Formats: sequence, structure tokens, C-alpha cells
Amino acid sequence: MTTNPPKSAGTDESHVRPGEVAVALPAETDAGVYFIGRIRTPWQSRKDCPRNVRESRERGTVCTIEIDPRWQAALPGVETCSHLIVLYWMDRSRRDLVVQVPRHYEQGRPTFSVRSPVRPNPIALAVVELRKVEGNVLHVVGVDCLDNTPLLDIKPYFASTDSVPDARVGWHADREEPLK
Amino acid sequence: MTTNPPKSAGTDESHVRPGEVAVALPAETDAGVYFIGRIRTPWQSRKDCPRNVRESRERGTVCTIEIDPRWQAALPGVETCSHLIVLYWMDRSRRDLVVQVPRHYEQGRPTFSVRSPVRPNPIALAVVELRKVEGNVLHVVGVDCLDNTPLLDIKPYFASTDSVPDARVGWHADREEPLK
Repeated sequence: MTTNPPKSAGTDESHVRPGEVAVALPAETDAGVYFIGRIRTPWQSRKDCPRNVRESRERGTVCTIEIDPRWQAALPGVETCSHLIVLYWMDRSRRDLVVQVPRHYEQGRPTFSVRSPVRPNPIALAVVELRKVEGNVLHVVGVDCLDNTPLLDIKPYFASTDSVPDARVGWHADREEPLK
Repeated sequence: MTTNPPKSAGTDESHVRPGEVAVALPAETDAGVYFIGRIRTPWQSRKDCPRNVRESRERGTVCTIEIDPRWQAALPGVETCSHLIVLYWMDRSRRDLVVQVPRHYEQGRPTFSVRSPVRPNPIALAVVELRKVEGNVLHVVGVDCLDNTPLLDIKPYFASTDSVPDARVGWHADREEPLK
């Protein structure tokens, strides 16, 4: 483990900020993913993006998910779902930080305790509201990513197993620093 | 698209059952994932596994998630969570079926309408109850996978965005066939 940048220093992507900790990444990946479509949003830069799914939902922006025609036959039935779990690949996020300082927290946070896209496998997850399906295009509310983000998976959201209304994230509920 | 097996026929892995539809997979994957740990369960074969997260929860079996020491510094704070989202790689699942016949349904189901591990990217998701963290080992209830399944990610479960108690999967709520 090192607190120094693992690759070239000096760029935004390799700089380790005070409070952050980077590790050396494994030499090779263990399995491969297919990009099965793209998420189209109005957000072209990070500063425009909602900072998380909650903010995206509050804005209420309808975004679209375009499924590659290869996989379109896997879609029927999805239109009967009120909500979906969407997995997408945050392809611009670094993967080597085990402690990070997210832009809206004051201090370092261990990676598995937060929902930031910066993680060993930059797979983001959003529970979205499905508004409409037109052919290979889904209209949804609740994604928080840049335009053209690669899609990995779509799953039906089952309240019976996916909904835990009384779940608690202790460090977040008890935090003293204000959200910026 | 074809209803014929895409590779060698005659094995369990390539046989397309009546009602199933396979497509040719892309020639290459688009990104790589790291296996960041392993999920240890008592289940060594598919017939022993709970058929889904609900059945796993009903059994109440405590399973463990072993994080690779490389990533252990990313864990602090996780112990304050009552529930976690766990992503894992169903490495024995085929990826080419767009319509499949899950073992407990009577008929073909389009892949994105079900939670089966058979999908283009075999990433499974479970909302688990966290019982205990000991060093790099998490004790949880709610995974439904074989022993030694590769781990991809751990995320805190935020009820504010992840819990949708009134979500509905129409085809499932309205189905007439009995669950076996």
C-alpha cells in the first residue's frame, strides 16, 4: 500500500489528495464485461451531473438507456416493471483508491463505505423509475452518470428482496459534517 | 440471432432448451473486472443453493465474504451498515441467452426481466444483512451463490435511494403458473 500515486503523477487521475490512500492494482483483470448499451443523459461534464441518485431523482430528469440491438430480445417483460436496477460502468473513474475524499465530504472515506464511482470495479448501481419502453430504448428517472456511459445490466427490482426501508448506514446517519 | 447453440452442442453449457434463444456473443469484451475477494457458502453444487436471495434469507444461513488483503483498507465504516449491496461474478453462468427457461418457471423468460445469473454480464446482486465484520471477513445473510464465488464490490445500502417498497414487477405479480 502506498500513499503515493501508483502511475504518472501530476494529473487529476493519478494525484492522491490529502487523506486519500492508493494501492497498486493487480497486474491483470480476472474477467471481462461487455458493454451492452449506452446511457444517454444531458450531462456532459462532472460538474453538471447530479452528485448521486437521490439528487437525480429530485431533479426528475428523464434519461434514456439504449440497448444494443444484439440484446433487444432480452427486454420483453421489462416494461411491466415500475422500477429497475441498472448497472453501469463508470469508465472515467480511477480504481486504485482504498480511501478517498469524495467531493461533497470533508474527510477521507474508505471506498466500500461510500457509493462513489471510484472503486476497484467501477460498477455503479441505480434504482430507477421506468417511465416507458420504446423498442430498444428505456426512459428512466434516477441515473446519475455522464452522457454515453456504458451499460452493463438491467434487472427487475423486486421489493420483496431489494427493499429494506429500515436499513441504516451508521457513519452517514451519525456524521457531524454538513453536506456541501 | 439463432436458436441453435452458439458453440459446441450437447453439453449442459451450450444446449439451448425449448423456449430459449441464444445470440452470438461479441468477439471481445470491453473492460475487465478484478476479483476482490471470495464469497464462502456451504453450497457446493447448484442443487444445494437457495434459488434466490429470498430463499437464502428465509434459510438464514450466515455466509462469509473474504476481502483480498489488498483492499482491506477500504472496509472501515462498512461495519456501521445494517445492510450492504454485494455484487458478485457468477462465473459458471452462460452469457449468450436472451430468452431463458429458469429452473423454477414453466416458460421462457427474456433475460432482463429476471434475476437469473444467466445474462450478458453475469453480475449478481444481493442485498444482505450484515451481522459482523472481523478483519477482512464479513459475516452476512442473504447471498445465494456457490462456495468460492468471486466478489466484485461491496456498497452501503441507503434506504433513501435503494428502498422502493411499492415497486412492482408486473409479469411476476400477474403470473398464473405456480412457483415450483
